[in-house]
Amino acid sequence: MNILIYNEGLHDLEPEVAAIYPNGIHGAIAAALAAPEHTITITTLADIEQKITPETLKQTDVLLWWGHMGHNKVTDAIAETVHQAVLAGMGFIALHSAHFSKPFRRIMGSSGTLNWYEYCRERLWVVAPAHPIAAGLPAYIDIPLEEVYREPFDIPKPDDLIFIGWFEGGEVFRSGCTYTRGYGKIFYFQPGHETCPIYHDPNIAQILRNAVQWARPTARRDEIDCYYLKSPEL
Amino acid sequence: MNILIYNEGLHDLEPEVAAIYPNGIHGAIAAALAAPEHTITITTLADIEQKITPETLKQTDVLLWWGHMGHNKVTDAIAETVHQAVLAGMGFIALHSAHFSKPFRRIMGSSGTLNWYEYCRERLWVVAPAHPIAAGLPAYIDIPLEEVYREPFDIPKPDDLIFIGWFEGGEVFRSGCTYTRGYGKIFYFQPGHETCPIYHDPNIAQILRNAVQWARPTARRDEIDCYYLKSPEL
Amino acid sequence: MNILIYNEGLHDLEPEVAAIYPNGIHGAIAAALAAPEHTITITTLADIEQKITPETLKQTDVLLWWGHMGHNKVTDAIAETVHQAVLAGMGFIALHSAHFSKPFRRIMGSSGTLNWYEYCRERLWVVAPAHPIAAGLPAYIDIPLEEVYREPFDIPKPDDLIFIGWFEGGEVFRSGCTYTRGYGKIFYFQPGHETCPIYHDPNIAQILRNAVQWARPTARRDEIDCYYLKSPEL
Amino acid sequence: MNILIYNEGLHDLEPEVAAIYPNGIHGAIAAALAAPEHTITITTLADIEQKITPETLKQTDVLLWWGHMGHNKVTDAIAETVHQAVLAGMGFIALHSAHFSKPFRRIMGSSGTLNWYEYCRERLWVVAPAHPIAAGLPAYIDIPLEEVYREPFDIPKPDDLIFIGWFEGGEVFRSGCTYTRGYGKIFYFQPGHETCPIYHDPNIAQILRNAVQWARPTARRDEIDCYYLKSPEL
Repeated sequence: MNILIYNEGLHDLEPEVAAIYPNGIHGAIAAALAAPEHTITITTLADIEQKITPETLKQTDVLLWWGHMGHNKVTDAIAETVHQAVLAGMGFIALHSAHFSKPFRRIMGSSGTLNWYEYCRERLWVVAPAHPIAAGLPAYIDIPLEEVYREPFDIPKPDDLIFIGWFEGGEVFRSGCTYTRGYGKIFYFQPGHETCPIYHDPNIAQILRNAVQWARPTARRDEIDCYYLKSPEL
Repeated sequence: MNILIYNEGLHDLEPEVAAIYPNGIHGAIAAALAAPEHTITITTLADIEQKITPETLKQTDVLLWWGHMGHNKVTDAIAETVHQAVLAGMGFIALHSAHFSKPFRRIMGSSGTLNWYEYCRERLWVVAPAHPIAAGLPAYIDIPLEEVYREPFDIPKPDDLIFIGWFEGGEVFRSGCTYTRGYGKIFYFQPGHETCPIYHDPNIAQILRNAVQWARPTARRDEIDCYYLKSPEL
Repeated sequence: MNILIYNEGLHDLEPEVAAIYPNGIHGAIAAALAAPEHTITITTLADIEQKITPETLKQTDVLLWWGHMGHNKVTDAIAETVHQAVLAGMGFIALHSAHFSKPFRRIMGSSGTLNWYEYCRERLWVVAPAHPIAAGLPAYIDIPLEEVYREPFDIPKPDDLIFIGWFEGGEVFRSGCTYTRGYGKIFYFQPGHETCPIYHDPNIAQILRNAVQWARPTARRDEIDCYYLKSPEL
Repeated sequence: MNILIYNEGLHDLEPEVAAIYPNGIHGAIAAALAAPEHTITITTLADIEQKITPETLKQTDVLLWWGHMGHNKVTDAIAETVHQAVLAGMGFIALHSAHFSKPFRRIMGSSGTLNWYEYCRERLWVVAPAHPIAAGLPAYIDIPLEEVYREPFDIPKPDDLIFIGWFEGGEVFRSGCTYTRGYGKIFYFQPGHETCPIYHDPNIAQILRNAVQWARPTARRDEIDCYYLKSPEL
């Protein structure tokens, strides 16, 4: 499986984040996904134009996206390239603040808005225990500190709601949501604030591994334009 | 609109509950729904066989169901009568421990199991603010004390998930769920433990009023048997 | 209810279409929706920039959209204005070839592609007879001649699939699909080729009337941006 | 994978059916599923009490069900056993007239009614081409002769609608529908009338193979009763 990890690579330059993720947020995600059968490629804003093209995405099974302060540094053309690749079958995993990234909003057709503040304790509940993305998990995962995301979260109704986040401050959030669009599978996953070492957590790593397996294409669509086609004679 | 309220009428005999609901749990529900255009009928285990029949349910637009320790005192025949009436178009609102009632489990085709304990503070979040059942509500409703229901809750995927319950003890629950089955609309609503005066809360009363409006039939089906039917000639 | 009908107004200039719709396609749609409680406004490509603005759409309950050869004459800014209005609560009804319009594709986050040819007989089946959009309809509606649209139709899974089209040439199509996005309700409806007098059909008119009732906002959202919000103390 | 095929085994005794299915309908289904990694067991009404028990179903990954004139010869206890096994994780594939079988109706909580007549040509369209159950299929499958099933079909909204049947007589049907209930996956598949040799068709066989792969459990639930559980301290 060919996995492409996009991390904008901006927060990682801050000492507080670098202390947690010395190899970048992408490095921690890559470590979580490391496996002999996974070919993992990294891209950041520095080389996104070379690494995210219609050609590279045709070879990509699943794209994971972590972005925040650099959302607007991603061009509309890149967002469109990602969108079309998803419709053609590529899996797409939007992590944490990617709820407000250009590709996620474009694919969802929704604003992706939510409410938030820093920080408190989270308990991430599994509400679809038989879903493949929940395989091998306990009933819930305690996260000592996370940014709070709370409802209402402006997303289309998920195909499956897998996780609900409970926050000590009194909030809830639909923290793990799946979709299909065209031939592509999409998973949104809330935990992952840059100043919290969440991607080092073995259960979170398990979720990421489950998610790339789930999101890999079962079929690809060659073209996406409308066409004229008379059915053969009955 | 013809509204039928079923309350088993057992907990209401306990002094602790009677102090909260001197007119019974059904009395509080009826008060919440009181309106000139609503004809409200009450039934309990004492007269359920007379009040819940195929004929009475044909005249009923929405049936609300509160039951707990008397689940097994409801006959399978009554459960079947309710089930068939729902498929034919009657609205059905399952309250609190009705998650484990015979009619709800039969309509859902699911076990309705969940985990629970007594008690703690609940904050009921609106996650579908544009749904008619959420009309006129604030972002969330604080409930000082409620029995805790927590996930996993064994129900089919809701058509709409309207409320998520946050509990101070660290739990979450899908607290407001809608379904359609046959011609009937179903709403499950979690708050309503017998020792907590929840049905006196004006926001909860608003939810009940919204729910009966939403659940009333838009069409009725006369018969539900399979039949042979050749289409007319093209 | 304030209803806005957009028809690009291009095909109507062709004699074959003008013979069927002497008052334009929009005229026939307006006639179908005429009612004392409906304030109906028309817009075409000639005045779309004046009639479709953030301000006018705030006053609009439901926008119906008929477009085809002029899809690319609609600016991206107009499509964005419609999209944001839908997320804020405005109903949107996409008619026939609007499957490929800019607003529909943007709201759906899908390509809207399908296969097609001209023409054959269609039989439009009701598959959700209790849905309000199907109120008052027979089991199916015969349409003597329609453009054939066939699967696969690249749309997100509908909330409700209300109509399936059967075509004499051997095709099927998901012809009536509902969605919610943000606070807005969306209905896609397939029949409506410009050279077939479909909008004069009383059953089709009934569907349009049902659809605007269903799609009107139950709530509006004032703003759609992400914001920082700490919950009040517990 | 342990596959259990139930065929009531009544129609197979008729010469017309026996000519098509000399090894029984179950024999043809078993042939379609034959693979080194599949352990296939057969049961009919003759030995259903021995072959379908809570213990045997715990060892079963997927149960396929073909029944028609013997629906009422299946006891309620057997239907309950199947239901509970599905909630605990077993996959269940309901074939053709199993829409009206006791287990299917119980799992769905719906009547399963439809309209029907004998016979005409069917064209089975794939409307979810990226779903694993559609893997390797053409755009549609022509079936020279099948019993006509037509809408409305009284089922809960499918999670995924994979196939729509087109019938030459002018009908449509939701012919391939998936569900999840509890830990179990369910697939309903319409083609399969006893007097039409449909299970010998290589594309239909491919669908059955895809379906058992899709429906096999990803997790099992040990018990299904409600229980008291206080969450650990935060």
